[in-house]
Amino acid sequence: MAPELHPAVAHLAFLLGTWKGQGRGNYPTIEGFEYFEESTYGHVGKPFLTYSQRTKGSDGLPLHAEVGYLRPVGTDAIELVLAHPFGVAEIQAGSIEGQSLRLKTTSVSLTPTAKDIRSLTRSVDVVGAEMTYLIEMAAVGQPLQFHLEARLEHQS
Amino acid sequence: MAPELHPAVAHLAFLLGTWKGQGRGNYPTIEGFEYFEESTYGHVGKPFLTYSQRTKGSDGLPLHAEVGYLRPVGTDAIELVLAHPFGVAEIQAGSIEGQSLRLKTTSVSLTPTAKDIRSLTRSVDVVGAEMTYLIEMAAVGQPLQFHLEARLEHQS
Repeated sequence: MAPELHPAVAHLAFLLGTWKGQGRGNYPTIEGFEYFEESTYGHVGKPFLTYSQRTKGSDGLPLHAEVGYLRPVGTDAIELVLAHPFGVAEIQAGSIEGQSLRLKTTSVSLTPTAKDIRSLTRSVDVVGAEMTYLIEMAAVGQPLQFHLEARLEHQS
Repeated sequence: MAPELHPAVAHLAFLLGTWKGQGRGNYPTIEGFEYFEESTYGHVGKPFLTYSQRTKGSDGLPLHAEVGYLRPVGTDAIELVLAHPFGVAEIQAGSIEGQSLRLKTTSVSLTPTAKDIRSLTRSVDVVGAEMTYLIEMAAVGQPLQFHLEARLEHQS
């Protein structure tokens, strides 16, 4: 029994479902890489969306994962709460513009053994059944710059 | 095809699987309440565990949820990265003692519209097929004190 979508997240319905595709990543401190991704945006009838993502390499082995929640604030603003398995908890805030999200880190918390990540920006755009995103990162002493981009297709 | 458990999390195998049961919560600023819970601890072959939890009331409607990752540090220490849908990202650190976890908040990050939560402690104990936990919370101006406890059974 699927719950009804909460009216506070109705304008985010364009995100709902499972998205699959490919992406690429780069950073000055690592070698460039490519990945396969599956992301799912769901809801439980409350005024937030659930979000989970997993990527794997061409060898089929898991690379990254992240899980969290999207919280719209009215119709134009949005907050993102994310947990990363490399020891980072992240708060982002930003705007909703049509079918696009523009988010920036407002705080990053690190476990004692985590990588030194300082901030991230995240742009998500949905056009028809295609989602693209771009993530910039400031980490390990490097300034904010390109880190990840991907193109995903909605799975019907 | 289930991946092999990473050796770095082998001593946490007692947590793996799905746990269901009941709990109760209380706090000076709210009325006491009871809930049904389902928690799942999983892995993807990497040196962390995935964790997700959902609770619902006796009316079947969702109450709380949280998602994140458990990162052991050697065999005695552990870190927890958690995202909460009410706008809180949490880092906890603590110890593993046999089949018990003892965790304390090291940082709490809040979205601009989140509830004012300051710190939490979390004790998890597994004996046979039974998991119990106790959560204390400091929030909305109140000192650290009892907030939640539950008793869950491993689902085979």
